[in-house]
Amino acid sequence: MTYCVGLRLKKGLVFMSDTRTNAGVDNVSVFRKMASWENPGERVVTLLTAGNLATTQSVISLLDERTKAPAERSPSILEVPTMFQVARLVGDSLKDVIQNNADTGQTADSSFNATVIVGGQIATSEPTLFMVYPEGNFIESSCDTPFFQIGETKYGKPILVRAYDQEMDFGDAVKLLMVSFDSTIKANLSVGLPLDLQIYDKDSLRISYQKRIDSDNEYYQLISNGWGQALKEAFLSLPDYTL
Amino acid sequence: MTYCVGLRLKKGLVFMSDTRTNAGVDNVSVFRKMASWENPGERVVTLLTAGNLATTQSVISLLDERTKAPAERSPSILEVPTMFQVARLVGDSLKDVIQNNADTGQTADSSFNATVIVGGQIATSEPTLFMVYPEGNFIESSCDTPFFQIGETKYGKPILVRAYDQEMDFGDAVKLLMVSFDSTIKANLSVGLPLDLQIYDKDSLRISYQKRIDSDNEYYQLISNGWGQALKEAFLSLPDYTL
Repeated sequence: MTYCVGLRLKKGLVFMSDTRTNAGVDNVSVFRKMASWENPGERVVTLLTAGNLATTQSVISLLDERTKAPAERSPSILEVPTMFQVARLVGDSLKDVIQNNADTGQTADSSFNATVIVGGQIATSEPTLFMVYPEGNFIESSCDTPFFQIGETKYGKPILVRAYDQEMDFGDAVKLLMVSFDSTIKANLSVGLPLDLQIYDKDSLRISYQKRIDSDNEYYQLISNGWGQALKEAFLSLPDYTL
Repeated sequence: MTYCVGLRLKKGLVFMSDTRTNAGVDNVSVFRKMASWENPGERVVTLLTAGNLATTQSVISLLDERTKAPAERSPSILEVPTMFQVARLVGDSLKDVIQNNADTGQTADSSFNATVIVGGQIATSEPTLFMVYPEGNFIESSCDTPFFQIGETKYGKPILVRAYDQEMDFGDAVKLLMVSFDSTIKANLSVGLPLDLQIYDKDSLRISYQKRIDSDNEYYQLISNGWGQALKEAFLSLPDYTL
């Protein structure tokens, strides 16, 4: 499993992903699930991936190869003019990789599946987020649904739903994501540290901030320990049920 | 889907279940998922069920029939001497019902599956909780795992893990369950009001308290609205991330 979140704020975009991959509980590894391409001053595109690791690595390699071989006829995500077309490219690559593997005789065709969050900004258009499905189609974030989660989404959703605010600043957004990830990590062995964090400041057209957060990270420890206590106090502040 | 929780406390047992059943999103009904048998002064047994409704109703009817026809050779849950044997009876009934339906030619044998939480106290033995699987086998609660959830368990788990305390009194326990159910109801359409609540006071050997909580319930509304606010304040109380 995996847990990745992309948040769209008034101030820009915030991405966080875990790094645990597993085939069963006895085969656990660390892999980065966040990939970025930038052409500073012109565009930034960030991908978060969940699902079959061979599929997601293939998709990222394919997209990456195209950016490095501009002579090839197929367009690259550093060239297409809109984020919508970036999402389409990602969707097409994803669908192709899944179908290529499914054709080899494997019957459980869902086992090669993957889901992708892609976000970024190109030139003067607004920053945006898309969620791309294994079938290659995708949806765009909106005011009503300003964030996307993929992977093990359930444990960390209640706090996102309650505390997200599109006006929040990046410091608050990172805090929110840390709480959401910590709740998930505490509940599901298939989501694990370290975490990758990336922040995109609207209209900067370059990656604004990147950080790998491991178990030694002081802020993560502060949140992980402090949230339990804060939650208990919140719970105690509510009136008791009278039988 | 469904959401049911059974809590084991020092003071006794607390059970809560939702009442929504659905076949797709366009076929929604209200059914009670909590069943109890008592022989006041001697034993109380309570069942919470999740899964295929035809299966769970069948299991409850079978168990109930046996208590009313004591002439039958098979033992009833009002007669067996221990909670362990109650769990075995429930497991056997569950396995039989699932297998009988699966034999009719339906290939998706998992579609008749169901899971059951059974708890109670018999005479001088300790009150206890079991979780019974579709295969008929079961596990018993312990100090390390003092509560069981079935159905849509993920959204409501983080608060249970953080705020549960075996020393808590019944008022606190009901508050905890309300928060856990409210988080789930807000996130998943297949879990819905009204809720059924039952409390068993240790060594009383009778059902101590029963209540159906619907959307008009003042305490539920207080928790549902108050928890969002309390959670936001808890979130604000933590230090911000410094970029």
